[in-house]
Amino acid sequence: MTNTQNKTSNRQNNKPKRTTKKKVSAASTIKKAVSNSKPKQLSNKQAAKKKAKPVVRKPKKPEKAPFKVIPLGGLKEIGKNCTLIECNDEILIIDCGLAFPEYEMFGIDIVIPDFTYIRENMEKIKGLIVTHGHEDHIGGIPYLLQEVQVPVYASPLAMGMIEHKLEENFLSCETHVIKAGDTFNIGSFSVEAIQTNHSIADSLAYAVKFGGNTLVHTGDFKIDYSPLDGRVIDLNRFSRLGDEGVDLLLCDSTNVNRKGFTPSEAVVRSSIDDIFNNTDARIIIATFASNFHRIKYFIEASMKHHRRIAVSGRSMENVIELSKKLGYLDDIPESVFVKIGETKNIADRNITIITTGSQGEPMSALTRMANDNHKSVKLKKNDVVVFSSSPIPGNEKVVSQVVNKLYEKEVEVVLASSMDVHVSGHASQEELKLIHTLIRPRYFMPAHGEYRHLIEHAKLSVALGQPKNKVFVMGNGDALSIDVSKAEVIKKFTSGEDVMVDGYGVGDVGSVVLKDRKTLSQSGLITISVAIDQATGSLMAEPKLSTRGFVYVEENMGLINEAINVVYNTIGKSSSQGALDEASLTRAIKSDMKAFIYKETKRNPVIIPVILYV
Amino acid sequence: MTNTQNKTSNRQNNKPKRTTKKKVSAASTIKKAVSNSKPKQLSNKQAAKKKAKPVVRKPKKPEKAPFKVIPLGGLKEIGKNCTLIECNDEILIIDCGLAFPEYEMFGIDIVIPDFTYIRENMEKIKGLIVTHGHEDHIGGIPYLLQEVQVPVYASPLAMGMIEHKLEENFLSCETHVIKAGDTFNIGSFSVEAIQTNHSIADSLAYAVKFGGNTLVHTGDFKIDYSPLDGRVIDLNRFSRLGDEGVDLLLCDSTNVNRKGFTPSEAVVRSSIDDIFNNTDARIIIATFASNFHRIKYFIEASMKHHRRIAVSGRSMENVIELSKKLGYLDDIPESVFVKIGETKNIADRNITIITTGSQGEPMSALTRMANDNHKSVKLKKNDVVVFSSSPIPGNEKVVSQVVNKLYEKEVEVVLASSMDVHVSGHASQEELKLIHTLIRPRYFMPAHGEYRHLIEHAKLSVALGQPKNKVFVMGNGDALSIDVSKAEVIKKFTSGEDVMVDGYGVGDVGSVVLKDRKTLSQSGLITISVAIDQATGSLMAEPKLSTRGFVYVEENMGLINEAINVVYNTIGKSSSQGALDEASLTRAIKSDMKAFIYKETKRNPVIIPVILYV
Repeated sequence: MTNTQNKTSNRQNNKPKRTTKKKVSAASTIKKAVSNSKPKQLSNKQAAKKKAKPVVRKPKKPEKAPFKVIPLGGLKEIGKNCTLIECNDEILIIDCGLAFPEYEMFGIDIVIPDFTYIRENMEKIKGLIVTHGHEDHIGGIPYLLQEVQVPVYASPLAMGMIEHKLEENFLSCETHVIKAGDTFNIGSFSVEAIQTNHSIADSLAYAVKFGGNTLVHTGDFKIDYSPLDGRVIDLNRFSRLGDEGVDLLLCDSTNVNRKGFTPSEAVVRSSIDDIFNNTDARIIIATFASNFHRIKYFIEASMKHHRRIAVSGRSMENVIELSKKLGYLDDIPESVFVKIGETKNIADRNITIITTGSQGEPMSALTRMANDNHKSVKLKKNDVVVFSSSPIPGNEKVVSQVVNKLYEKEVEVVLASSMDVHVSGHASQEELKLIHTLIRPRYFMPAHGEYRHLIEHAKLSVALGQPKNKVFVMGNGDALSIDVSKAEVIKKFTSGEDVMVDGYGVGDVGSVVLKDRKTLSQSGLITISVAIDQATGSLMAEPKLSTRGFVYVEENMGLINEAINVVYNTIGKSSSQGALDEASLTRAIKSDMKAFIYKETKRNPVIIPVILYV
Repeated sequence: MTNTQNKTSNRQNNKPKRTTKKKVSAASTIKKAVSNSKPKQLSNKQAAKKKAKPVVRKPKKPEKAPFKVIPLGGLKEIGKNCTLIECNDEILIIDCGLAFPEYEMFGIDIVIPDFTYIRENMEKIKGLIVTHGHEDHIGGIPYLLQEVQVPVYASPLAMGMIEHKLEENFLSCETHVIKAGDTFNIGSFSVEAIQTNHSIADSLAYAVKFGGNTLVHTGDFKIDYSPLDGRVIDLNRFSRLGDEGVDLLLCDSTNVNRKGFTPSEAVVRSSIDDIFNNTDARIIIATFASNFHRIKYFIEASMKHHRRIAVSGRSMENVIELSKKLGYLDDIPESVFVKIGETKNIADRNITIITTGSQGEPMSALTRMANDNHKSVKLKKNDVVVFSSSPIPGNEKVVSQVVNKLYEKEVEVVLASSMDVHVSGHASQEELKLIHTLIRPRYFMPAHGEYRHLIEHAKLSVALGQPKNKVFVMGNGDALSIDVSKAEVIKKFTSGEDVMVDGYGVGDVGSVVLKDRKTLSQSGLITISVAIDQATGSLMAEPKLSTRGFVYVEENMGLINEAINVVYNTIGKSSSQGALDEASLTRAIKSDMKAFIYKETKRNPVIIPVILYV
């Protein structure tokens, strides 16, 4: 009952609240221009219509100000989405995400976009609009706000997550909570938020109008005809925008390689029902903390089966707290929740545990359960553990490790590979085709994806009739410059590089440091400290050799002693050659030691000679 | 024509060469015992039959000597397969493979089984039989041979690969080349090699008879009704073995989670034909060097389309050389091969390049092409690059990186995800069911797989009617002890641990060293060298601070100078407390520096104080 009511009211919410006559007609002029692809002819036609009038005027050009779109992140990569629209000396930012470090970025916490262009054009920045609350769309905001004060516009859930981040970083900014259907102005940009579907609630696409131009950015999306909250993507609005005319479409490319349609969340609901219907065991479900709709469904299913719900894992607790605060859980009585520490007093068939750890994260609640070091939950035979998730590329092995540990506990493991307990949040080929067909943009820029995704998305649009020269596959830091007559890519318009964050350091770890970390990780290091009498050149103390990550010293004293002899020999040789200056001696120790160690062990540790002149 | 002829003669080869009457009848007695599951009753019946005779004898027990099966590798993991059969003080080894290092085994080259039990029972070891030539089945042999001299039995291709390894390591041993259908004795073990299908030619299963027992080990296998070389897995032999009675089955579990049947290599052949039929561009195909049949098909397809063949990558060159030596390429004229350096003089439509690099290996030929630093091959627009492979779990990201680089070169990339250019070499559920049904073993031990695979394989066999208490899911180093009346698992019978190889070091890198390497990889290190007057306790030189992998020093001189001040303060403090002994001062410098660095940078580098007393 409650569900159906929601559905109806939400569908009504999807209707755009304001559409001024003026805007519509301006847009439809543009649309005709687009369908003809000959703007000059159109001008002639307009001129022709006005022939009757005696006043001679220059043929009126469509009023379209030139603009640039500058992606700072999200192209040729999965992550750190951030795109600028610049028109008439005003800049609007869409999303500001982070990326997780690549395999060889040793010790790096996160990666953010390079904000150089923003820093250099601070006075132009009018605002930041956010499509949804995933880290790759909001994770860079605290770093952005340290560079420039900018008002942030986001849907309730995304804003809740952003505010949580700001609090953690002792930051604040002007915030505007918006909803699908809202139209609002930021500087001279008129922004309309459009309902989409994705793996997090409150996801939005944006239609942005400025200087006579219309740009549509889908954000991350899929088309779900039966989403759990009943708020179906506003296809009608996309369709009307297509009719009105869209100059540039930016569209999610993540799943462009998948054929057909991405299944609806309803599929997951039905699998979850099957699980709840068929077991009296304790149910433990891991999913992405941000997939709030799914989490809410786990709660509803639990209630239906007289199960109470415990939550484990900080990010999961935060999301549930936030959802309560936003009123998204108003229909769930507080009494169904139980503290994780109290679950052991409840019969197995009456408890559901919702947990983090679906990606095998080493410190997550589920991994701690699997490793037998979770404070409150001890897994037992026949527990049902559901991974309502797929491993993100790169996480396959760690997830696999956790799954194997769970098997050792004799729990029943349910994976997305054997049962439909997870669906993707991104549009597959047929959904992308639908969006392209509805919007029919003048220009198209594939967004959000590795290079191969962008290329395949470009091919998909061309196969649908988009002229090849009106599709722009770009890289971060390139700019797409569009004016009424043409569009062109300015390569490397601004940096567009990765900025690596390590602890408090933002951008201070570069390739040299990373290379050292890699070498250290492979064979460790040997330091050789030597004290030499500055006057006589004689050794003042026995050379000392320390190692880390090289060999287990206690079992290799023979090797270490031989290595110390090598140092004595080197110093003797250098001394007899009168080459005891720091540079020469350092070089000699390094090279002799390197050769000796490689000969003995076939390893290449980092060698660090330190010479103290006494 | 040639193909068909091969097919016929090979099918004939599959027939077992010798089956003595005696063995068959002994085995069928066993079989009856198995189907009744009541050996004692059978003995009574036999006694009853003999009632007429006046001589009173004890009822004759089935002649079955007790034996142990001891897996040293391959269980609860993918890799380093190695299993011992021990009976009457004789040991037969099946396979001796390596594993590739896990994610956090920094700097480790390979992992091999722990040979402790072999070392301790050297005089019992009679021989090593090899199922096929993949690294996870033969890669440990050079290390084994350094411990114990043992005759090695393998099929031609596997033996060629083993001999190549031995040459590289200046090793030799007694070798016996065997073929499917051969039966031979190793000590008191009677071994029969049985044709299977897998992703490398000449793959074998083994039926081993000893002390009245029969053990079948499938090796890695699939069921391919239309393999490229026409040598179909010898299902008839498996069937007869089932009739004769099998005491213990060890069976590949790798693909137990896949439903249905694994497709035939014929599917790949047809996709390759499609590619060759539809392009005039240069074709570059990457696959596993060991998949010789497929490589041969690439050569045949190229010839059909008047293309010459160049080979790039050392392991690929080795395999082709070996195949020529073994006569497997006798039907291919030498003139179709061309040196990789000469390909640029040949029209695109007349050249196929077969290359290594299907797993995105950083130094492989294909990766070098993608990175534009291959000596002879420069990729160009419209080249067709085929990945006839799937990423091995853990390699998804590096493969993805290479694919993206190839897209940047505007080549056409063909992946197994979009076209059937690769099939697995392991049996899926329906194939496993077939083997279990044909063999109906007394006991079953799932082999080759992570824990979850072993468990699912155990479940599959139970679902087919195998009694639960006759299925043994084991770990490396456990022993399955079987005698006529019972079977039991002896946990941790021998080590069964991973032995890590780093350079020349075998087993000398342990958890302490690995932990150091991990810490070093995350934040690098700071060494602090100090010279102190032993008599007065005064500093004899300015303390020196070196870092690697911590910060870029030239841009952080302020921090480094402050850190040196911290050292002065620590020494001053320690000196005033009279705590200048090495242990106290080391501890003080480490702790003060750690706190300072963390406060300033939120990083935790390894701190190495070195104190020289002058």
